[in-house]
Amino acid sequence: MQSIVRNRDVPAPARGDAGAVLWLTGLSGAGKSTLARALELRLRALGQRVEVLDGDEVREHLSKGLTFSREDRDTNVLRIAYVANLLARNGVIAITAAISPYRDTRAKARAMSGERFCEVYVSAPLEACEARDVKGLYKRARAGEIPVFTGVSDPYEPPDAPELEVKSHEVTVDQGVDAIVSLLRERGVL
Amino acid sequence: MQSIVRNRDVPAPARGDAGAVLWLTGLSGAGKSTLARALELRLRALGQRVEVLDGDEVREHLSKGLTFSREDRDTNVLRIAYVANLLARNGVIAITAAISPYRDTRAKARAMSGERFCEVYVSAPLEACEARDVKGLYKRARAGEIPVFTGVSDPYEPPDAPELEVKSHEVTVDQGVDAIVSLLRERGVL
Repeated sequence: MQSIVRNRDVPAPARGDAGAVLWLTGLSGAGKSTLARALELRLRALGQRVEVLDGDEVREHLSKGLTFSREDRDTNVLRIAYVANLLARNGVIAITAAISPYRDTRAKARAMSGERFCEVYVSAPLEACEARDVKGLYKRARAGEIPVFTGVSDPYEPPDAPELEVKSHEVTVDQGVDAIVSLLRERGVL
Repeated sequence: MQSIVRNRDVPAPARGDAGAVLWLTGLSGAGKSTLARALELRLRALGQRVEVLDGDEVREHLSKGLTFSREDRDTNVLRIAYVANLLARNGVIAITAAISPYRDTRAKARAMSGERFCEVYVSAPLEACEARDVKGLYKRARAGEIPVFTGVSDPYEPPDAPELEVKSHEVTVDQGVDAIVSLLRERGVL
């Protein structure tokens, strides 16, 4: 069992074709935002232009009023994908950190950005995420205060073939960042 | 009376600070999209990275379901402003082409991007816009089929101090583009 799993069957874009969508997906508490922020720092230190589109922040700016119903979640995820693509095609590395639980919707996000899209599955067992419960959301979900919550009352559909899987309960944040930076180098983004 | 009016009381950003929000505002039919597309071509020819955030396209991707009520229009305009700012701070020239009829809301858009923001008032008399009626919207508004329509049943608040005013019924598209390119040069964007 590897803690960081690279899928090498994905065609790489032409070297030098800067800009990418790094699509982090995973349960609440899996460590997407932590990884995104650490990666942002590393990439900025390398002189790259980077934006982190975090689930909560984007919801505030682009999707206020949307619920957590399947339809509204899809709308939110596709808005993030639209903005990430606008950035990536202008040479920015756009890191998204929304749960994005549904496989179909992530496929639509991928279709928008083509070869610039890299799916990074930030995986951790539900129990580990729930034990951390950084924002106290699992507790509220178990208490029935949040009626629809991924992993508790709504499914999380893991990626079939992500470009990279980072098992966040087995590796350090730095190791996760290293793996993503290597991926970007191999794909010619860096 | 000048057909292109430059406001020189606006502080310019430091030279070399690439990236800008070119905020085109004006009535439906005033020529915002035409000017935006012509400008996009010119700027691309100059090697610039450019995105046009057109009212209709953005509404489809970011604001589906929003009405034309004051509150929803404001939400739509602020979403455009959020995305335009993300692009501009990464060195892209983001051209927006939404009616954006309310002065207060445009002020909020300006506040998001600070010195990168350039307001371009694309002005033409209502009669001229209505006579063109490119999308047939004025006719529908007069017939009562569109209950809220800027210039007919909802106010357009002209900018008090736009960085540039282009009187689109008096100048050619090329002249408008020239004026905007000059503005960008003076501000150190180009």
